[in-house]
Amino acid sequence: MENRDWKLDAEYALIERIARAVQAMTPPSAEAGVVTSIGDDTAVLRWGNHLLLWTVDMLIEGVHFRLDWTDAHALGWKSLAVNLSDIAAMGGTPRAALLTISLPPERTGDWLDEFLKGFLECAHAYSTALIGGDTNRAPCADGPTVIDVSVLGIIEGLPVLRQGGRPGDWLLVTGSLGGSRAGLMRLLQNDRSDVDALKAHFMPVPRLREGQLLRQRGVHAMMDISDGVASDLPKLAHASRCGAQVLCAQLPVHPAALRWCMETGEDPVRFALAGGEDYELLIAAPPETAQSLLAEFSMQTGTPLTHIGYLTAGEELILQDEQGNLTEMPTLGWSHF
Amino acid sequence: MENRDWKLDAEYALIERIARAVQAMTPPSAEAGVVTSIGDDTAVLRWGNHLLLWTVDMLIEGVHFRLDWTDAHALGWKSLAVNLSDIAAMGGTPRAALLTISLPPERTGDWLDEFLKGFLECAHAYSTALIGGDTNRAPCADGPTVIDVSVLGIIEGLPVLRQGGRPGDWLLVTGSLGGSRAGLMRLLQNDRSDVDALKAHFMPVPRLREGQLLRQRGVHAMMDISDGVASDLPKLAHASRCGAQVLCAQLPVHPAALRWCMETGEDPVRFALAGGEDYELLIAAPPETAQSLLAEFSMQTGTPLTHIGYLTAGEELILQDEQGNLTEMPTLGWSHF
Repeated sequence: MENRDWKLDAEYALIERIARAVQAMTPPSAEAGVVTSIGDDTAVLRWGNHLLLWTVDMLIEGVHFRLDWTDAHALGWKSLAVNLSDIAAMGGTPRAALLTISLPPERTGDWLDEFLKGFLECAHAYSTALIGGDTNRAPCADGPTVIDVSVLGIIEGLPVLRQGGRPGDWLLVTGSLGGSRAGLMRLLQNDRSDVDALKAHFMPVPRLREGQLLRQRGVHAMMDISDGVASDLPKLAHASRCGAQVLCAQLPVHPAALRWCMETGEDPVRFALAGGEDYELLIAAPPETAQSLLAEFSMQTGTPLTHIGYLTAGEELILQDEQGNLTEMPTLGWSHF
Repeated sequence: MENRDWKLDAEYALIERIARAVQAMTPPSAEAGVVTSIGDDTAVLRWGNHLLLWTVDMLIEGVHFRLDWTDAHALGWKSLAVNLSDIAAMGGTPRAALLTISLPPERTGDWLDEFLKGFLECAHAYSTALIGGDTNRAPCADGPTVIDVSVLGIIEGLPVLRQGGRPGDWLLVTGSLGGSRAGLMRLLQNDRSDVDALKAHFMPVPRLREGQLLRQRGVHAMMDISDGVASDLPKLAHASRCGAQVLCAQLPVHPAALRWCMETGEDPVRFALAGGEDYELLIAAPPETAQSLLAEFSMQTGTPLTHIGYLTAGEELILQDEQGNLTEMPTLGWSHF
């Protein structure tokens, strides 16, 4: 976390390396039943007459969280919420979860109870049953603690993939951006004064109802923003074989991010574009759908929806500032390598 | 691994702690569709007209493997094989896998390619499609490497659980015991002379065809032996509300384990009882089913099947030696805490 490494392409290249190896080695027959494979928010399988969504996320002490910053309860919530966010990004409904944890012995008592309380509060809030998993000891007495959560969900009709966007689609985002990053920046300075920022960082809200509604309304492409718009929009645009133009003046910057930028003099637009772990939804929708969504969505869900740009023909990723100046989108956002 | 901690109950108690927390927090409605919950080899869900098997296993550097002992290819094979073994223990058929890895940057090149090769060879051998996952960097430049694999399978009819055994059932095991432990013991002494022992340790064979046949033949209870008979038989007996008696003279000791015991003077029976990571199947079957299986099974599958004892009324776990002397089963076997 403190070692954040602002490179766009390394993890993406790694995933492509794995996908190539799989393609080279997998006989077509073994893929029967697989609809979407490596590279989207969740895997999708055909299972009888149903489509099944399947996702996994690993949280590692020292990479994704620090135990001196986060309490066990918040970590429990977040470890499930980030998986539910992947289900939300397909427009699906979660059903069940497996929890795998590697813990040093000292955390198998009260710490584990608090962790489970947070995990199960999130499970309860989003009707997901914890039905199994695996427990291990950590390699050393002081960790690292590793948490791996896998979630299965269902979907009515077809999932919304990253690849469905078309030139001319409007780009929309739910909620606001940069709040979680503002929390992280304050934690790095041992500043716990901004409760909104900490809440955005520790207790992300999976946009499940929002994702289901957006799928029903026929949006073209969708993903959750886990690594920042500057890192995630290129993935959606690339999968859809489009370019994109972002209207910087319209980015919904989280109030806690604005406060941080006012104190530090950072540029709010760049800050929000690089804001990892927001777990908001990024959507590409045809203009007429987008317009009617912008008129109704926040009334129906209680969650803001904002028009932040367009998909374009070509490959370029462009920022348009308030004066109408165009610049190439900078390489920002969180990469794991 | 070198810190093996021979306590029977710690992980078991931890799983029970989690199960209690889940029970306290889960509304009955959220469990709709769940057939078997926490505590068996895999979770079982009802999904439309199908039953779905779902399992996960985490392998942690310094706990489950050491990179100076194992090569990437063998680790790739094993990380999938141990999950397929859980599917085998229910009598099911694997369909798809998710792979989550946390790697230091230096292992994202050739090392990862070799790992994937081993993983995909196992996937290919058992018709399992790798369809997604999650990639992360390790917390430090030197690791730990963490591998988490989740597998979905299907089953015709009902799965074989741990809890179906009855007093009077014969206890059977596939294959032989102690081979993987012999490999581990030799590695601890930096002795790579016994190829069979190393193969048993690094390349376990999931008993999928065997498990499917045993389910079809109506065995009462089944599990895979990952922590040794001395640790795993109590789990099956406890789940079935039975005691057990093990006929020590009949235990099928792996040739590599026998060689190790002859060299070191260790008792082969105790060695085999404590032999973790054999990934053989432990079965409870009614006597007539057991007898007909013993007559046909190895012809049909190529895998030995051995009668090693009985389930009994009561709770006691008893060893019967060659002279007919009865002793309480010692607390042996691998525990993760």
